[in-house]
Amino acid sequence: MAFSVEGIEGLPEIGEGDDLAAVITGATSLEDGDIIVVTSKIVSKAEGRAVAAADREQAITDETVRVVATRAYEGGVTRIVENRQGIIGAAAGVDASNAPDGMVLLLPVDPDASARALAAGIRSLTGCSVGVILSDTLGRPWRDGQTDVAIGAAGVHVFDDLRGGADASGKPLSVTMPCVADEIAAAAELVKGKASGIPVAVVRGLGRYVGALDLPGARSIQRPLDRDLFRVGADEAYDDGYRDGFDESQSEGSLRRDS
Amino acid sequence: MAFSVEGIEGLPEIGEGDDLAAVITGATSLEDGDIIVVTSKIVSKAEGRAVAAADREQAITDETVRVVATRAYEGGVTRIVENRQGIIGAAAGVDASNAPDGMVLLLPVDPDASARALAAGIRSLTGCSVGVILSDTLGRPWRDGQTDVAIGAAGVHVFDDLRGGADASGKPLSVTMPCVADEIAAAAELVKGKASGIPVAVVRGLGRYVGALDLPGARSIQRPLDRDLFRVGADEAYDDGYRDGFDESQSEGSLRRDS
Repeated sequence: MAFSVEGIEGLPEIGEGDDLAAVITGATSLEDGDIIVVTSKIVSKAEGRAVAAADREQAITDETVRVVATRAYEGGVTRIVENRQGIIGAAAGVDASNAPDGMVLLLPVDPDASARALAAGIRSLTGCSVGVILSDTLGRPWRDGQTDVAIGAAGVHVFDDLRGGADASGKPLSVTMPCVADEIAAAAELVKGKASGIPVAVVRGLGRYVGALDLPGARSIQRPLDRDLFRVGADEAYDDGYRDGFDESQSEGSLRRDS
Repeated sequence: MAFSVEGIEGLPEIGEGDDLAAVITGATSLEDGDIIVVTSKIVSKAEGRAVAAADREQAITDETVRVVATRAYEGGVTRIVENRQGIIGAAAGVDASNAPDGMVLLLPVDPDASARALAAGIRSLTGCSVGVILSDTLGRPWRDGQTDVAIGAAGVHVFDDLRGGADASGKPLSVTMPCVADEIAAAAELVKGKASGIPVAVVRGLGRYVGALDLPGARSIQRPLDRDLFRVGADEAYDDGYRDGFDESQSEGSLRRDS
């Protein structure tokens, strides 16, 4: 049981309309079972998902479908939101780092579709059965720092579904479902990184997770709201409860006065 | 930029009192800069952190310092808690999988101290400058499935602190601080896994993250409560707010009646 992760060096700067499948296959040789992890930033660039930096706050608003939590800091407000892609994160994925000068990048419109097109293109150019993961860097509750996760996936199983299986001693693993797509994205960050300028890594040796192009994508990782115990921030939920409790008490009081 | 991850096969079953440094160095050859990722389960076994499965619920209560959220399911209640180690997760880390028959395993008392002792032992036995990460499998808000994270670390930088640095085009990366310890733990899960019975992996090629034994451990990853927007579940926060709002309204009402 072993695998390797290698950053692809020397890729050209990506611009709108570039054919990423051609760029990647031109820069490295691939094998059956490889998983190619692509920083979503370069997919955004290829898809022309850049807007003027001056419009950043409006872009965040436009990309937001639901505000999860906010926090004021010196100089602004951090907005943790669910974005159009269903991903919960800061600033709806709108980000200036590694964006063209004076611009900010939005996430790809449909990261799973982008991953599927890229995987299909690479499979067609190389004849190799490969998987593609689009990664982004996200903060998380409870733990400081960020990790890269899968925001798009194609041709790869996003979960290693052990539910119904057994551990090494035969005991049932009733709830265990490692999110291998997130783990692969995290591994790839260790060679890609925001500072290195390397946007693509090849993970070799995990071909057991590679499969059909129409496997469920990264959107299937997103927990439905009705099963999410942390669907809004603690302060936001407290404020909602306070308002409802106050109103309920008032209406009880008015009922009492009316009676 | 490349690294490899290899599971160590053929390790013996670990029991209380076993010398993990001797077991690991006896099973594989190590090099300067290697990072050894050890499933915390075998550290718990070596430290004798097993209790009878019948006492599981009490053990969870005993290991809990703060309840974060609860949810009833058919047959029980899931408790998301902060445990004695400061880690937020389900069931305080008390787990039956890969535990001895009829027993459940608690987390090591001080995972950073366990990692430090293990790293010191391996360094002493091999003369190699290695890092050690203790991993555990945790669920997370917003995203389904679990990923392995670092719950103990020694001789390794847990963050790649880019704050104050620049991206590939020179723009400042003001808040970027990848949690490389969690990413390395996640990568190692891909060869260790709950089902494979392989509890130790060697990560080779990331020696730039290896450092002194007294670097901050995995506890430094845990976000302080006052900066945690998701410090309690949405339902729990709402209920707290409701109660306070109701009471406040009542006391306003009584003030009004008193006046």
